[in-house]
Amino acid sequence: MLRAQYDRRGPVPQDVIEAVEFEAPRLQVGQALVEVVAAPINPADVLTLTGVYGQLPPLPAIGGREGVGRVAELGSDTGEVRVGQLVLLPLGCGSWSTHVVTEAAQLRPLPDQADPLQLSMMAINPPTAALLLSEFVTLGPGDWVIQNAANSAVGLYLVQLARYRGYRTVNVVRRQDAAAVVRDTGGDVVLVDGEDLAERVVEATGAAAVRLGIDAVSGAATGRLADCLCESATLVSYGRMSGEPCAVQPDAFVFRDLTLRGFWLVNWFRRTPEEQRRALVDELARLITQGTLHAPIHATYDVSEIKEAVACAASGERSGKILIVPRR
Amino acid sequence: MLRAQYDRRGPVPQDVIEAVEFEAPRLQVGQALVEVVAAPINPADVLTLTGVYGQLPPLPAIGGREGVGRVAELGSDTGEVRVGQLVLLPLGCGSWSTHVVTEAAQLRPLPDQADPLQLSMMAINPPTAALLLSEFVTLGPGDWVIQNAANSAVGLYLVQLARYRGYRTVNVVRRQDAAAVVRDTGGDVVLVDGEDLAERVVEATGAAAVRLGIDAVSGAATGRLADCLCESATLVSYGRMSGEPCAVQPDAFVFRDLTLRGFWLVNWFRRTPEEQRRALVDELARLITQGTLHAPIHATYDVSEIKEAVACAASGERSGKILIVPRR
Repeated sequence: MLRAQYDRRGPVPQDVIEAVEFEAPRLQVGQALVEVVAAPINPADVLTLTGVYGQLPPLPAIGGREGVGRVAELGSDTGEVRVGQLVLLPLGCGSWSTHVVTEAAQLRPLPDQADPLQLSMMAINPPTAALLLSEFVTLGPGDWVIQNAANSAVGLYLVQLARYRGYRTVNVVRRQDAAAVVRDTGGDVVLVDGEDLAERVVEATGAAAVRLGIDAVSGAATGRLADCLCESATLVSYGRMSGEPCAVQPDAFVFRDLTLRGFWLVNWFRRTPEEQRRALVDELARLITQGTLHAPIHATYDVSEIKEAVACAASGERSGKILIVPRR
Repeated sequence: MLRAQYDRRGPVPQDVIEAVEFEAPRLQVGQALVEVVAAPINPADVLTLTGVYGQLPPLPAIGGREGVGRVAELGSDTGEVRVGQLVLLPLGCGSWSTHVVTEAAQLRPLPDQADPLQLSMMAINPPTAALLLSEFVTLGPGDWVIQNAANSAVGLYLVQLARYRGYRTVNVVRRQDAAAVVRDTGGDVVLVDGEDLAERVVEATGAAAVRLGIDAVSGAATGRLADCLCESATLVSYGRMSGEPCAVQPDAFVFRDLTLRGFWLVNWFRRTPEEQRRALVDELARLITQGTLHAPIHATYDVSEIKEAVACAASGERSGKILIVPRR
């Protein structure tokens, strides 16, 4: 058995993580041993390795917040879960591993007809996209939303969810070659970021009032999104790809009544009742199973290749998510 | 009769404004001729001359948004106002003038026992300070507020209003020699802005939770205020003294749930019923009359000296407000 472990944090994430052998402990009452099928590398994972995430586990730690697996062995008193069943791993379980030992009650059975690689990405990015669309502004069919980093996993999920709910999206990308995937995914308008963004948005939307902006880039890109929004709009930050402070002219707040807020899934989970969390995850699992939600995969790596996998995930020059898929 | 007029806008505000002679028109039904006693130069006036304010009058225009005067002459049907009475001029009337002709119904009688120079500054800065304290976060006695540009007129009114309502203030200034006036005005903590501001605020407040921040500087100063605030706090921008975009790390929004908003008195007036606006102005007039609210005056100028007056108001190196006080 192999897992990706780190005992320090540092600026180059692939330098601090390594694959180490381990022996699964003897299962306690209520525990299950799960063979990991797939586990993604999310931006939050990279930020955790570099030490700039909002929640850092004590060291040493095992990498990987989410993933899916098959139940390999059960202790006593493990309830309804069965050996062989495809399950969603609990959040933060250290999923970049060949095997995970966890409480069986925390495992969530998944439909076997869906692509397990797609399901492995369902617990973080899809709810983020869904909640960005629902928690800040009440949108109706035909309403416009603007987002940047539209070719990111969250960005593409957001395009698909917006379309599913009848909203229209303006999608901003940083390079021309990132536009095609967003257009193919169903983005209504796709634009390359630049100084004249606001004018091009006016033209492309017929001067529609855009009341919700979604920013994963920060820096001057936040200000350019702000310029595209109508009076009394809300701009939500959920990422920091540029590594720079959000830079927005005070006039946007003072004269145009802009509100700038943030979204962090961890906080939403903390303050939301279990029933409501479960309802959201159920809906997203259904949308993934029926193919409404789908994310491109750039490459898969074995746990033993964790350094290459993390380096690739951190590079930003990808066409989709990096997954850890343990070889059997 | 003399008034300060401009027929273009430009980067150097004293270059575009000039004192010009005029003849008062014959009074129409309901009109009054008011001799201006005093009218301040506010930051919004300077931004209007340079063309970067959120609301720009058609050209040519007369400078000055607020002020006080004495009724000199009345047309017919002018209601209860009397010749000789001290009155508050209506907002936006072009108060940098020896005389103003206006609807008598828009004049608000003022108590004669108060200092008319203090009353001349009452319609813009004091309500701004009052509403920054009341419109965004519900504060109670003992609660802390942090603001920068604390030695500005709004800043000093805010210190006095906070003290009057039992709140405590952390006041940030940009230079050491601006600290004394804030301390003398009743600021609980006064600090010079700098990189380690957040640590010094923790020390000075005993690590109090500061839920409201008020920013008139923008630029990196906005981010330094954000660092001083507790989780789920609100930061309100109402000025742009640095001329730079508000720069705040996305982590403040994402991980600490910060909300960044703006305040513009013009918008508040637009959306607030007359009765509520009047109640606020009444309270502020009372607080000025009884000496609870007071702002330092750097210098007074005649209308004929408008260029020097505006240059001084725009320079920023002042110890108080610049007032236009027409010589008789």
